[in-house]
Amino acid sequence: MSNKIYFTPGPTGLYPTVPQHIHKALEDDVCAISHRSKKYEAIHEAAVSNVRALLGLPANFHIFFTGSATEIWDRTLENLVEESTFHLVNGSFSKRYFETALELKKNAKALEVPFGEGFDLKTVEVPAGTEMICLTHNETSSGVSLVVDDIKYIRQNNPNAIIAVDSVSSVPYPKYDWSQLDTLLFSVQKGFGLPAGLGVWVVSDKCIDRSIALQQKGKSIGSYHNLPSLLSKAKVNQTPETPNVLGIYLLAKVGEDMLKRGVDTIRKETDTKADILYNTIIKSSVFEPFVKNYEYSSKTVVVANTKILPSEVNKVLSEVGMQVGSGYAKYKDTQLRIANFPGTSVEQVEKLADCLSKIC
Amino acid sequence: MSNKIYFTPGPTGLYPTVPQHIHKALEDDVCAISHRSKKYEAIHEAAVSNVRALLGLPANFHIFFTGSATEIWDRTLENLVEESTFHLVNGSFSKRYFETALELKKNAKALEVPFGEGFDLKTVEVPAGTEMICLTHNETSSGVSLVVDDIKYIRQNNPNAIIAVDSVSSVPYPKYDWSQLDTLLFSVQKGFGLPAGLGVWVVSDKCIDRSIALQQKGKSIGSYHNLPSLLSKAKVNQTPETPNVLGIYLLAKVGEDMLKRGVDTIRKETDTKADILYNTIIKSSVFEPFVKNYEYSSKTVVVANTKILPSEVNKVLSEVGMQVGSGYAKYKDTQLRIANFPGTSVEQVEKLADCLSKIC
Repeated sequence: MSNKIYFTPGPTGLYPTVPQHIHKALEDDVCAISHRSKKYEAIHEAAVSNVRALLGLPANFHIFFTGSATEIWDRTLENLVEESTFHLVNGSFSKRYFETALELKKNAKALEVPFGEGFDLKTVEVPAGTEMICLTHNETSSGVSLVVDDIKYIRQNNPNAIIAVDSVSSVPYPKYDWSQLDTLLFSVQKGFGLPAGLGVWVVSDKCIDRSIALQQKGKSIGSYHNLPSLLSKAKVNQTPETPNVLGIYLLAKVGEDMLKRGVDTIRKETDTKADILYNTIIKSSVFEPFVKNYEYSSKTVVVANTKILPSEVNKVLSEVGMQVGSGYAKYKDTQLRIANFPGTSVEQVEKLADCLSKIC
Repeated sequence: MSNKIYFTPGPTGLYPTVPQHIHKALEDDVCAISHRSKKYEAIHEAAVSNVRALLGLPANFHIFFTGSATEIWDRTLENLVEESTFHLVNGSFSKRYFETALELKKNAKALEVPFGEGFDLKTVEVPAGTEMICLTHNETSSGVSLVVDDIKYIRQNNPNAIIAVDSVSSVPYPKYDWSQLDTLLFSVQKGFGLPAGLGVWVVSDKCIDRSIALQQKGKSIGSYHNLPSLLSKAKVNQTPETPNVLGIYLLAKVGEDMLKRGVDTIRKETDTKADILYNTIIKSSVFEPFVKNYEYSSKTVVVANTKILPSEVNKVLSEVGMQVGSGYAKYKDTQLRIANFPGTSVEQVEKLADCLSKIC
């Protein structure tokens, strides 16, 4: 690994311990292990139990692996919805989840607010009878977050709906109350700092029951990655297909490293680092926070308007071996996206902030 | 990497150059590259063009990446079939493809022969109007192959059907006549000796047209991994989702290594090694070939009945740092499966054969 520090929102830089884990995996021939062997099952079990501990997941939730978080959008829609979904759309990824539902021929409706704005979950009105409500906790495109503690209002007002949360670029930071949601999805190339190519799907028993009910009605809920299939293999710490064994091994190892560090420590450091970054861009004459409402400002993906091209900013940062992300899609020349993931330290963020504050 | 040589059918041992490519990938921060950047596009382009060269693929075929070959079963069925499929079933994987079609609510029919037997493609009768015919070139479970040159009879007799070939455990060995099939699928943890977690989907323009026609009829062809979506991103050497970047990088590199060695050399060596293995088990008093018809005997996965438990065979082989696979599912105690992939040399196979021939 080079010594460059990546503050890019994903794929991001590798979690610092990943190279040593990859070397050990090569030494131990992890890639040659059969996915039907006891050795694999031990790796799988370690990955699941470490993620479970990091998320504080109760026993009525399961963890399954897919090829990407994008795949999980599909799978939630296939397994949990016969007809109707409702989406809170405030950026490119929440919009893509909504569009996926339309492509899969669901009766999908959305409440959309402008890019950079958030939602007051207390007042969101969901059409009666909606089967699944899709929330994007952290909009990687715009840097807007939902208030985690307010998900309870969505639950209170829609007790029968499945509540699905896309937490791609925020896990393991948010502390969820698992009684308030039913399924959560994320990928590993963001907060976990792992090589891309693995999605993690967290699913409650309520979701399993819903998918079985759909199946019993004669609906297609997909094949190898439908929930009954995933569950039956997960019970023996396996997957239906040959999975990304190396990715699951690395998730187990980095999960262990994070648990040793402590998830509360990771959360506190994330807060500290976010404060440093926001304070820096607030004071800057070149940058300013894009999200105006601080309550909705992401702690893990800080988005700043910039008067200087991101490529120019990165030219300056490259002198200290650092790189930030540019804005998403049409904002690529006018915004920065600065990832604040567990893989970077307070000291590194201070160095980044110092460098950014000198750009004027 | 340990020095152990894996003759397991998948995941198998890593292709010998993989560890050095992984080290270089870490040095070059390949895992931190944005999947929307020029750097990623260059990696993607190299992987596609190297696989294209190895397969001898004409310009009317495209290469797309998925999470697994299992996923591609789904995607062929979603994108290419409104109602009817026909499957040649002679083992666990061809059967699973058939069952996947049923799970996806297709009108799927199968011609099934006993485990260990093959098909005379000249005489196979397919129901009139079948939209897609699914062939499994190499049954990883039983060690039975189709005769590649005979696929033309399926084409001749069913000119309108899509011909789909599962070549999971045989690529890059078979030399396909691409005018005789429309889509091919494989994964990388077998013949390519790469870490698992990447499927490769080869698709003709005829398939693209078929999926667009289904879409225009208002049918769901899936979302991010439907063919129009995959094609639009592939045109700019990207993928719809964040892909397994490291896997695609390694595919590019090992593809390059294989091209330098020469695909004809790889094919000849595969033949030589298969001859050594079959000759050894024919002469043995402990082992015998499971597939009785030599014409249908796989060159890449040699299956042998064994009078000694596979675990006992592997105990002996472990003394020379080698390991073979056990039989599939209910054959796990009575059969060996010996992978004959490009990652092992003639010398290594000679050493294996020598060791097997001494077991009595």
